[in-house]
Amino acid sequence: MPHEYETDGAAIYRQSFAIIRAEADLARFDPDEEPVAVRMIHAAGMVALAPHIRFSAGFARAARAALQAGAPILCDARMVSEGITRARLPAGNAVVCTLHDAATPARATAMGTTRSAAALELWLPHLAGAVVAIGNAPTALFHLLDMLEDPTCPRPAAIIGCPVGFVGAAESKNALWADPPAPCCIVAGRLGGSAITVAAVNALASRAE
Amino acid sequence: MPHEYETDGAAIYRQSFAIIRAEADLARFDPDEEPVAVRMIHAAGMVALAPHIRFSAGFARAARAALQAGAPILCDARMVSEGITRARLPAGNAVVCTLHDAATPARATAMGTTRSAAALELWLPHLAGAVVAIGNAPTALFHLLDMLEDPTCPRPAAIIGCPVGFVGAAESKNALWADPPAPCCIVAGRLGGSAITVAAVNALASRAE
Repeated sequence: MPHEYETDGAAIYRQSFAIIRAEADLARFDPDEEPVAVRMIHAAGMVALAPHIRFSAGFARAARAALQAGAPILCDARMVSEGITRARLPAGNAVVCTLHDAATPARATAMGTTRSAAALELWLPHLAGAVVAIGNAPTALFHLLDMLEDPTCPRPAAIIGCPVGFVGAAESKNALWADPPAPCCIVAGRLGGSAITVAAVNALASRAE
Repeated sequence: MPHEYETDGAAIYRQSFAIIRAEADLARFDPDEEPVAVRMIHAAGMVALAPHIRFSAGFARAARAALQAGAPILCDARMVSEGITRARLPAGNAVVCTLHDAATPARATAMGTTRSAAALELWLPHLAGAVVAIGNAPTALFHLLDMLEDPTCPRPAAIIGCPVGFVGAAESKNALWADPPAPCCIVAGRLGGSAITVAAVNALASRAE
């Protein structure tokens, strides 16, 4: 006998978001931030994510305005760039991931760093006014912060800094949060990852739920 | 001043896995399962994932043998198929995701279900002996179980069933676990997702850490 389950995608989203809003403590988020937090919690499958989500003042407005104005979205991993729902993007925004660019491995060796960090050098022509979405590699977030210590480096409009894991993730997000070179969003601690990062981008791209 | 952080990718993996093995209770996993659980925890950034991971008897051996023999990997979402590290695959295994196939939207409408579920109909020519990796959509896992209730449907070699979320995720994984049509791995409850699913595939593909 076939299993019985909800097969209407829109209804699944509606019910999911209603459960999150019933269970999670979202009171500290303003109306610009709340739908972003809800979608991040949805991607994680975990209302306990809520207390770890942090938005710097004006982040959600800055990121939405940049996307409306056509900003490219710069991603550290293919799981991030592939997860972004193109139909939600307000201006046919470019989605850029340079990790698998042919030049990246040799550049990483020359720089003595990871491919994830070296790939960011190829962001330079796109970085001014961009929305940065780092959901995998702490080394990418650290390298971005180092790049932005150069005052001549172009400034992104907003930074989603949500790398995940046990080595460098919490530290890189703490460094971003302590001295943000642009409005930013983080998930404090070890949690984070490509799905949560994608969810933030998808929420910022469109108010539609 | 540049930030100080580990830039050696291999060292980052080594340190991460050592932290996980020091902090997580992995005693109930056998030597075939343990590296899979470690990598899933790594992807989640959460040692608290450990008690939710379940392997049916012989799952890890069956999935590894299938991959060694060249089994295709059938993925419900592009975030899953894109995350699989091709260099770890033992036999140049095909990685298949039919979600964005041109035929899928019309098929979903005709079937009255989600695109994620309808996309699985296109798995049929690949399903015999395959490794299934469902990391996103509960409707995909439910539909797979319904397909496999037909005794003439080809059998996969192993099923990684880790959809995430608030509506149907726990229920679909419970249904798989209660009556597995093939050796299976689940993350019980709401947790799961593409990164955890990808991590399981990458661990089963190669013993290298």
